[in-house]
Amino acid sequence: MKMIRNAVGRMIPDEIDGKKLKPFMGAHEDHGGGSKVGPPIRAIVDYKDKLCSSLDEAIDACNIKNGMTVSFHHHLRDGDYLGNMLIEKFAERGLKDIVLAPSALFPVHEAMVKYIENGVISHIEGSMNGAVGRACSLGKMKKACVLRSHGGRYRAIQDGDLHIDAAFIAAPVADPHGNASGQLGPSACGVLGYSLADSLYADHVVVVTDNLVPFPNYPWTIRGGNVDYVCQVEKLGDPEKIVSGTTRITRSPARLLIAEYAARVVRDTGIMDEPNFSFQAGAGGTSLAFLKYIGAIMREKGVKADFVRGGSTKYMVDMLEEGLIKFIVDLQCFDIPAVESVSKNPRHIESDPFTSYNYHSKGNLVTRAKTAVLGATEVDLDFNVNVNTHSDGWLLHGIGGFADVSDSGCTIIAAPLLRGRVASIVDSVTTITSPGELTDVIVTERGIAVNPRREDLIESLKGSDLPLKSIEELRQIAVDLAGQAEKPEYEDRIVALIEYRDGTVIDTVKQLKV
Amino acid sequence: MKMIRNAVGRMIPDEIDGKKLKPFMGAHEDHGGGSKVGPPIRAIVDYKDKLCSSLDEAIDACNIKNGMTVSFHHHLRDGDYLGNMLIEKFAERGLKDIVLAPSALFPVHEAMVKYIENGVISHIEGSMNGAVGRACSLGKMKKACVLRSHGGRYRAIQDGDLHIDAAFIAAPVADPHGNASGQLGPSACGVLGYSLADSLYADHVVVVTDNLVPFPNYPWTIRGGNVDYVCQVEKLGDPEKIVSGTTRITRSPARLLIAEYAARVVRDTGIMDEPNFSFQAGAGGTSLAFLKYIGAIMREKGVKADFVRGGSTKYMVDMLEEGLIKFIVDLQCFDIPAVESVSKNPRHIESDPFTSYNYHSKGNLVTRAKTAVLGATEVDLDFNVNVNTHSDGWLLHGIGGFADVSDSGCTIIAAPLLRGRVASIVDSVTTITSPGELTDVIVTERGIAVNPRREDLIESLKGSDLPLKSIEELRQIAVDLAGQAEKPEYEDRIVALIEYRDGTVIDTVKQLKV
Repeated sequence: MKMIRNAVGRMIPDEIDGKKLKPFMGAHEDHGGGSKVGPPIRAIVDYKDKLCSSLDEAIDACNIKNGMTVSFHHHLRDGDYLGNMLIEKFAERGLKDIVLAPSALFPVHEAMVKYIENGVISHIEGSMNGAVGRACSLGKMKKACVLRSHGGRYRAIQDGDLHIDAAFIAAPVADPHGNASGQLGPSACGVLGYSLADSLYADHVVVVTDNLVPFPNYPWTIRGGNVDYVCQVEKLGDPEKIVSGTTRITRSPARLLIAEYAARVVRDTGIMDEPNFSFQAGAGGTSLAFLKYIGAIMREKGVKADFVRGGSTKYMVDMLEEGLIKFIVDLQCFDIPAVESVSKNPRHIESDPFTSYNYHSKGNLVTRAKTAVLGATEVDLDFNVNVNTHSDGWLLHGIGGFADVSDSGCTIIAAPLLRGRVASIVDSVTTITSPGELTDVIVTERGIAVNPRREDLIESLKGSDLPLKSIEELRQIAVDLAGQAEKPEYEDRIVALIEYRDGTVIDTVKQLKV
Repeated sequence: MKMIRNAVGRMIPDEIDGKKLKPFMGAHEDHGGGSKVGPPIRAIVDYKDKLCSSLDEAIDACNIKNGMTVSFHHHLRDGDYLGNMLIEKFAERGLKDIVLAPSALFPVHEAMVKYIENGVISHIEGSMNGAVGRACSLGKMKKACVLRSHGGRYRAIQDGDLHIDAAFIAAPVADPHGNASGQLGPSACGVLGYSLADSLYADHVVVVTDNLVPFPNYPWTIRGGNVDYVCQVEKLGDPEKIVSGTTRITRSPARLLIAEYAARVVRDTGIMDEPNFSFQAGAGGTSLAFLKYIGAIMREKGVKADFVRGGSTKYMVDMLEEGLIKFIVDLQCFDIPAVESVSKNPRHIESDPFTSYNYHSKGNLVTRAKTAVLGATEVDLDFNVNVNTHSDGWLLHGIGGFADVSDSGCTIIAAPLLRGRVASIVDSVTTITSPGELTDVIVTERGIAVNPRREDLIESLKGSDLPLKSIEELRQIAVDLAGQAEKPEYEDRIVALIEYRDGTVIDTVKQLKV
């Protein structure tokens, strides 16, 4: 195994588990090449009846064998039953070495850890969060896991880097043809776009539903023409944990201040005065507060946004209905008002990672967003961002859309300078998720740093009363307050690759010495 | 060149113009195999500005060379300007041997004949109608043309049988990213689904619009992530000829009777009493009359249709709004009320040939339609259907959706027994478009014949007061009235292949001796 230094200075093996790796070359150095996957050609004559009476029958039909790759999506979040049900079925069948390719995992999937330990699951490709990430950090997976952003996952499936043998798509509403969406039913989750790639490219596609309706079910986020089997189960998930009743703005004074600063950065840089103003903000407490502040500024200035990218919440829906934003382009609904909105308001657009995030396409939506506000666990003096590991080395989060969204016109990281006694501005991030060249502004409660590469932003903020500082100044404040954090100790083994959205490797995660 | 007899008894060459051919094996004998095309992988970094200031600039960008294949769609019908504009530009550039792959052609495209004669156009793959078909019959194309159904065209593009170098998609509304639809603007045509395959699989995709709107244009039938260039032109077409003000029911007593018989067949067979009643009917005068009669019967019996497949018209929209049908699943809007409906009624679904017609998919919509009423130029004693040539041998019509739709649960051919002095029931059709095994009922003004293969339908119609006859009896009536038609005389040369929806060749068309 030869180690190669990539464009952000991390040492990347040239291969792992027999698979060749490409080191990260820079955010915009990859120009594609080669061909997308051509999925198998099937004929309608073999799809006269797709209904399976049980999940077992569907698993049988997919002919799942040891070592195969199986996928599911995370739109049901912490309320998902399907992921765990599948693994239990695989275990009952004595299957081994299954590669899981979920779009993300949640605390509910902690139940999978024992199947990692006993070898039913070999490793994870796609995303890991919480307990399963912890198991990865402890070296419990048979092979190196691959973490990908939402756009990177679509790209990997489309390009053939991630071949899915069987995709199980939890569908809150579906018809016997397999037309499916997330919009209606007891397990409604709104958008269902994270499973689009799976439906297009997996060898076998199973739609699993607790809400079978007569053909045609519309909208058909997942199209029946791509679906092999339709399987009814009693319950897909726990509605209380699929979407919140309502999401709540942070009450932390520090986070409120961060959100307000972020909104003022958008105002004072003049971004919102340019044509086609648009932005992305998520569903965390700080992001919701950002929506509140930016909304107030937009009202004051009479500015409207051409579009806003979700995760969507009541706060965003209210802005849509007020006319402050023309369209929500959404990949995930976080609360009940958002689910209702996407199912009834034609200006609340259901999106997918191809349209929003895919680097290997002829343009995506984030590059048309003028600004985005994102959270992070660490940012370093080179503006590199870490959203995957904590400073103690534990792998606890997936990439989400981070590496995709950071390509927006002005990417603002909103993060408290300190979380307890741990600084978020560090000399060098524990893990690089996204390169510094795409990080434009860091907003903390104790000051704001603009990336020196963005001379235009620095120029535009002259005269602003925002507490502008250099990243080194912010780092010094953090050190003064919290001291230097202890570095984690690692074993030699690489347990996970952080794959950049273009398919190159931007960093690795090592097994923790415990 | 070896000739092989196919499953409907026609002699098919094993190859033509150096291309291997597969003879038709039966309507449901093909089970797919192999892989779909994997289009080239591109990267967003190369798509920062897609706007071209002229059609010339877009043509330059596509780097079109002699012998390349260029496509456009027919949603603008007889009002289309783009097809002719393109060919004129190609001629100005001295290009030769361009293969055209339109989804259909209209009388307006007669202007292309001179470019066929002077070698700018080599031949046509996809569909031909009217003057261009006539040029084909006269042997003016350099190579054998290939006629495909709408679903067959999608399949051929998806499977790689038809590689499109550059697709020019006339878009009544589009944004600078290339998100496009047919729903709005001076050239509004409603649905834009016939160009979906082109957008997904062509090497270069150009959206041409006379109505550029700010990003995001939604709905995005054509997704910007698949579009290379966006080109503005002054006018895409003549609105008066793109959609009719209103479409009109036939006034011919014979055709009204045919339509009424067809509706009574649907009633008396009990098809409409089964669960999930659904049907397809087109936009011709007889089809509109069928809608009127079937609507009256549905009202009388209190039956609702789960869905109806368009081409859509005011008559169909009225039934949707009345609640007689739950959904229109539409591939083409024929009049202004239909265009308005698809843009505002979420139960009027914009479809595409993948969803509706593709044989090489995991099921499509026509096999879920309980019945369909279709026109034809000839039907023979084996129930084979011809929609392409007339009895005098002239190739004058594309296949349209015929070979796809004939796979519905009960396919009813509604045709006058005589057109002038020409019989539509013949001993053996001039050209086989669709095999007899998929033709269930022939309805004429002088009697109705049920395919003897459909014993279930024959049984269900016992006791009906419909004028049931054998196909031989209908043929005899036609001969008694009109005599035997003169057979056309042909040269040896095959000028067109009739490709079945699965990619096999069901018949050929020969050059006419004139």
